[in-house]
Amino acid sequence: MRAEIITIGDELLIGQVVDTNSAWMAQRLNEQGIELYRITSVHDDKAQIIDALDAAFNEVDIVLTTGGLGPTKDDITKQVLCDYFHTHLIEDTRVRTHIEELYRDRPDVLNRLTATQWQVPACAEILENRVGSAPLMVFKKDDKLLITMPGVPYEMKIAMEEQILPFIESKVESQKSKAIIHKTLQVTGIAESSLAILLEDFENRMPSSLHLAYLPKDGVIRLRLSSYGDMTEEEVTRWFDELKQLTADYLIADTDEPLEVIVGNVLKAKGMTISTAESCTGGKLASLLNKHAGSSAFYWGSVISYDNSVKVQVLGVPAELIEKYGVVSEEVVRVMAQSVRKLTNTTCSIATSGIAGPSGGSKTKPVGTVWMAWDTPKGTFAECFHLGKLREQVTDRACQKALIGLLKHI
Amino acid sequence: MRAEIITIGDELLIGQVVDTNSAWMAQRLNEQGIELYRITSVHDDKAQIIDALDAAFNEVDIVLTTGGLGPTKDDITKQVLCDYFHTHLIEDTRVRTHIEELYRDRPDVLNRLTATQWQVPACAEILENRVGSAPLMVFKKDDKLLITMPGVPYEMKIAMEEQILPFIESKVESQKSKAIIHKTLQVTGIAESSLAILLEDFENRMPSSLHLAYLPKDGVIRLRLSSYGDMTEEEVTRWFDELKQLTADYLIADTDEPLEVIVGNVLKAKGMTISTAESCTGGKLASLLNKHAGSSAFYWGSVISYDNSVKVQVLGVPAELIEKYGVVSEEVVRVMAQSVRKLTNTTCSIATSGIAGPSGGSKTKPVGTVWMAWDTPKGTFAECFHLGKLREQVTDRACQKALIGLLKHI
Repeated sequence: MRAEIITIGDELLIGQVVDTNSAWMAQRLNEQGIELYRITSVHDDKAQIIDALDAAFNEVDIVLTTGGLGPTKDDITKQVLCDYFHTHLIEDTRVRTHIEELYRDRPDVLNRLTATQWQVPACAEILENRVGSAPLMVFKKDDKLLITMPGVPYEMKIAMEEQILPFIESKVESQKSKAIIHKTLQVTGIAESSLAILLEDFENRMPSSLHLAYLPKDGVIRLRLSSYGDMTEEEVTRWFDELKQLTADYLIADTDEPLEVIVGNVLKAKGMTISTAESCTGGKLASLLNKHAGSSAFYWGSVISYDNSVKVQVLGVPAELIEKYGVVSEEVVRVMAQSVRKLTNTTCSIATSGIAGPSGGSKTKPVGTVWMAWDTPKGTFAECFHLGKLREQVTDRACQKALIGLLKHI
Repeated sequence: MRAEIITIGDELLIGQVVDTNSAWMAQRLNEQGIELYRITSVHDDKAQIIDALDAAFNEVDIVLTTGGLGPTKDDITKQVLCDYFHTHLIEDTRVRTHIEELYRDRPDVLNRLTATQWQVPACAEILENRVGSAPLMVFKKDDKLLITMPGVPYEMKIAMEEQILPFIESKVESQKSKAIIHKTLQVTGIAESSLAILLEDFENRMPSSLHLAYLPKDGVIRLRLSSYGDMTEEEVTRWFDELKQLTADYLIADTDEPLEVIVGNVLKAKGMTISTAESCTGGKLASLLNKHAGSSAFYWGSVISYDNSVKVQVLGVPAELIEKYGVVSEEVVRVMAQSVRKLTNTTCSIATSGIAGPSGGSKTKPVGTVWMAWDTPKGTFAECFHLGKLREQVTDRACQKALIGLLKHI
């Protein structure tokens, strides 16, 4: 069983908005054994939307659209679908009651434009959009389904989880695909091409129904084994276990979880807590560490000492130390790490100080130079990295290096 | 002149990677007067890639692809293009020299797989990929162009800016489109439907060559006026100025810049500096404030007091205050803001404390409750918000509210 996502909206095609919805939807579909065949992004344009629908119905069983369902003039998806399915709008009293209830405390929102939201295509089945006014519409075309969703990410997510995925599951039970299995491990400290040579024999022996993909990013390579319904979980696991053995020297994780989740699990398992003292990463490392639910069990706090005065006054870094060695130095990050660990009373800590750029670089310390220290019960460790030339790249890679280093040192 | 982006990679269609490239490319293309017609994401699959190429050449003048150019087996784009253009691979000595130079300090990377990267299609023109080994290939089909890029974002960006955009400009000078103009303003404190009613007369009077789009997100609505080559800058500006007047009561910015950039500009203009004391936002607000180059002029530092002990020990919030009013309270955020401002010696500060969820909510303070305080030369201001039920949504919205509040109070 295959699906296509059509994302609708000028904002996507002028680059005003990044499409984060599709990746999230792809994961959920795969978990239900539905392969995502293609993603197509088109303008709020009738001809383009219809072309995309025709192309999708040619290839897949389920078409999912996002966007274009608001009450304003630029949103045309509902009207285009009325024309496409030769139907007309009717009032849906269940939707009306829901929207009136939704905005009970905001009478200003219950205006005549919002009222157009309970006008729905006569031939569509309507699923409940618990948190918004845009209708979740289901259209049938022969044996195929078209389902519409709003483009606002959190509305889309609630709609998918509470309504659309259960609906799809109930409708397609009989013709369900076999399980799609992805297994990912993460390695560091080896070049992509060297890794591929290391795995050459493995890849040559792999059955053709198994796929191996290399995904390098920020110094980590994710290696993904995928099977699209032709192998059992046990068979894939056997290959995956061999892959783990072959890459053991570089392995940092045998799941696709983000590094901060892996770090969090290790800290929790060891009953440890962590704090950070950040200069160039500016709070990015802190917000990674507390991004996921349950992080208060191990993440306690940070001092973001962007300006040197904060390093001196809050972290107690001696001004002479900064003067003597420079603020991007082993000496300074060691004191930062030790100081924040003491201040917050945690079992370990990470400190970063570097030149994220674009300015501030010198011949001996060019943009991308980052000093990092880890203070742990085993001692204080420090390391210098050169992480590229683009500001965002430098800070993102620094966060990954900080987490990898922590795994090594605790 | 129109373009299409084809992104190639299984990782996009199983949701392992979010496509951030396309939005960035769309912006750059628009700046050059090139309209992005469509974005299509396909698997590393020959038939699918060829289908997408045919469909794109049917509609547009320039096809840009990303992905599938690595040296490993899962990367097939180069070979598929050889077949598509009926050509074969030859060694390019210029590319070889470049790659050998690139990896001079890493002889392990100069292996036989990397050597396949200097094999390029005989009929393609090769542009220099300064920071990587994947070839930037240009193919011609009649009057149309196909240009390939790696999928790694920072490599793609450097390739686009240094090579591809100048190349396109030099090739298409004569047939260049007229200017594409987008002008965006941002409003807050009004529902999308109410805003549309406020602007109804304006929209009815607008010429058909002008488009108005509503983009609501995290409590802010971006209103975008777009013209695709049929109006002059002056004409669009006239309509935009009227839009500003009509929305004056809700206006927070007359550009599409992120709120943190607008805040940074105001702080710089006033010669002010800022610090944050963050609980529920966990460093996200700090990293927004120092995300962009030049932020050290106004952003000095933060205390991320995730655990209560850090609020007490580092920020000096009296433990009794937390006990009496709860950690998510006006009393606590006021002290947090005042304390961090004093600690870091800045002219203003923001403090946040809230329940990001999924756990920790109660009947009187449900998940999504966030107290916020701004400490400024004009005094300390505090406000309570209810920002939804999803962890990420709560913290993202809290950052936006914090920045909007700051604009109001300074």
